[in-house]
Amino acid sequence: MRTIDWVDGNVEIIDQTLLPGRLELRRIATVEDLINAIQSLAVRGAPALGVAGAYGVALAARQHGGDEKLLLDAVHRITTARPTAVNLARGAERVAALLPKGFDAVLAEADALRDEEIAASAAMAIRGADLLTELCGPAPRVLTHCNTGALAAVVGGTALGAVAELHRRGHLDSVIASETRPLLQGARLTSWELGQLGIDFRVAVDSAGPFLMARGEVDAVVLGADRICGNGDTVNKVGTYAHALGARRAGIPFVVVAPESTVDHDTASGADVEIEDRDGAEVVTGVPAVNPAFDVTPHDLVTAIVTDRRVVRLDRGERV
Amino acid sequence: MRTIDWVDGNVEIIDQTLLPGRLELRRIATVEDLINAIQSLAVRGAPALGVAGAYGVALAARQHGGDEKLLLDAVHRITTARPTAVNLARGAERVAALLPKGFDAVLAEADALRDEEIAASAAMAIRGADLLTELCGPAPRVLTHCNTGALAAVVGGTALGAVAELHRRGHLDSVIASETRPLLQGARLTSWELGQLGIDFRVAVDSAGPFLMARGEVDAVVLGADRICGNGDTVNKVGTYAHALGARRAGIPFVVVAPESTVDHDTASGADVEIEDRDGAEVVTGVPAVNPAFDVTPHDLVTAIVTDRRVVRLDRGERV
Repeated sequence: MRTIDWVDGNVEIIDQTLLPGRLELRRIATVEDLINAIQSLAVRGAPALGVAGAYGVALAARQHGGDEKLLLDAVHRITTARPTAVNLARGAERVAALLPKGFDAVLAEADALRDEEIAASAAMAIRGADLLTELCGPAPRVLTHCNTGALAAVVGGTALGAVAELHRRGHLDSVIASETRPLLQGARLTSWELGQLGIDFRVAVDSAGPFLMARGEVDAVVLGADRICGNGDTVNKVGTYAHALGARRAGIPFVVVAPESTVDHDTASGADVEIEDRDGAEVVTGVPAVNPAFDVTPHDLVTAIVTDRRVVRLDRGERV
Repeated sequence: MRTIDWVDGNVEIIDQTLLPGRLELRRIATVEDLINAIQSLAVRGAPALGVAGAYGVALAARQHGGDEKLLLDAVHRITTARPTAVNLARGAERVAALLPKGFDAVLAEADALRDEEIAASAAMAIRGADLLTELCGPAPRVLTHCNTGALAAVVGGTALGAVAELHRRGHLDSVIASETRPLLQGARLTSWELGQLGIDFRVAVDSAGPFLMARGEVDAVVLGADRICGNGDTVNKVGTYAHALGARRAGIPFVVVAPESTVDHDTASGADVEIEDRDGAEVVTGVPAVNPAFDVTPHDLVTAIVTDRRVVRLDRGERV
């Protein structure tokens, strides 16, 4: 089963707002419905958002093929539906370049992007698992944050794909999955995927991560990214930075796994990234809240970045 | 209104499991009911637990005054109802020393302990507010964690008492209250108290704290302690350590406010403290969880400890 795909002329997604209670596919036929799915996090995760952006342009081409103004407006709304993950805009823009050639060319390019993300997941799993074994030995206990499994990509995933590969090799001890407030992508989605994979795991509140590291219960932190800046600063789900601080103090590796499509050389550093501040009602109702959905982990706290093509050892002075 | 008191021959508490929905007093007449209230966090917070331990011994003296074996067993169960905050055992043991003199002497000692905590709150508010102004200037934006207001003490509170004093002086900008998973003492209790006090505040998920500091939205972190060890290591609600790491990286003060009754010279360091691991079902149901209720903040991350009697500037090499 694919998290997102083009099926019978529609975008089909696993509706991630319903998991772990219900595993349900949702068909999306319009740009408006797709944007709603993106903004409500029914589809989420940087690689999956790239594919969503690509297929969104296909939907736009079909809906508004005869009206360039409406078409460009739709592409713009897709591109900007969420600001932080670079993949959404990048996927949409890449496919939009094919619009002059017509719908079939657009769809072919979106399919190609989807296939590249599938291949990237497979490559990251291998490279990530190899690196974790190199850094931590034969049976690490890893902590991960948010969801970076198949649900964040098309199949496979990024960081959780590498963890699953370690498990397949028999080289994994166990996983701590941080619950990832406020929308609980860890407690809902990662725990569901880990259960499906048969991996031994425990959920922890986000703020327990650094203490569990200090208490000696974690050998490595491994997680994904929504955007990797030119200097290696890593923008990812809020809570990533706190885990990086904890890993540094505990002296354990902090490994980011993300496809090359998430590396953004056009953005110099984390300070240049728009961080999405979401509705406070996601956190608490009835009182005011501040709800940044992402944070920035400075590059000096990152041990290594694993992509589908390379391992960048920031801890050894290598550059993105 | 007092969070905990002796009223008409019973322990009377504000049931903190019902807030912010309902403000309800609960009368407790037996040791068993008190232990249940302590373990379910109907009464919580280090100073309030000290008073609970003291009055618990009074309940025990009344229930089991004629049977020394039952009495000592009851005192032991009170003392060990929760392991991490030093105040509970210390309050119970102090009052238990009066058991040979009979119920009236026991109750008088428990009342004295209650009155000392009330006085301590008032003194901490002054010292804490003075220090925050000294460190941060006339209108700081502070971040606090868990609940350290009147609900954690008898009246007033510890860290939140100092924040309230700043507000009374007109020397406070605003507060960020971390929600404090899993039982939401921040989102439920601190936000309720801040609302009552008329203080401008926003709630944030716990893991956002370090990023909000990095983004320049916090001038100081101020919070309480369940036990302060001889070397200054501070044991407090899980998430405290992550906030301390964030404050250090952001270069802002990290201030602990707690009464002398929380300072435990008999415990050399945080490594010697039993950290309460609570039921994973508090975090998530249906899958396994690890749920440490507290963490240890190493003393080198603490700028200052404010008690009712002194300010210990750990950042200047002063010792607890």
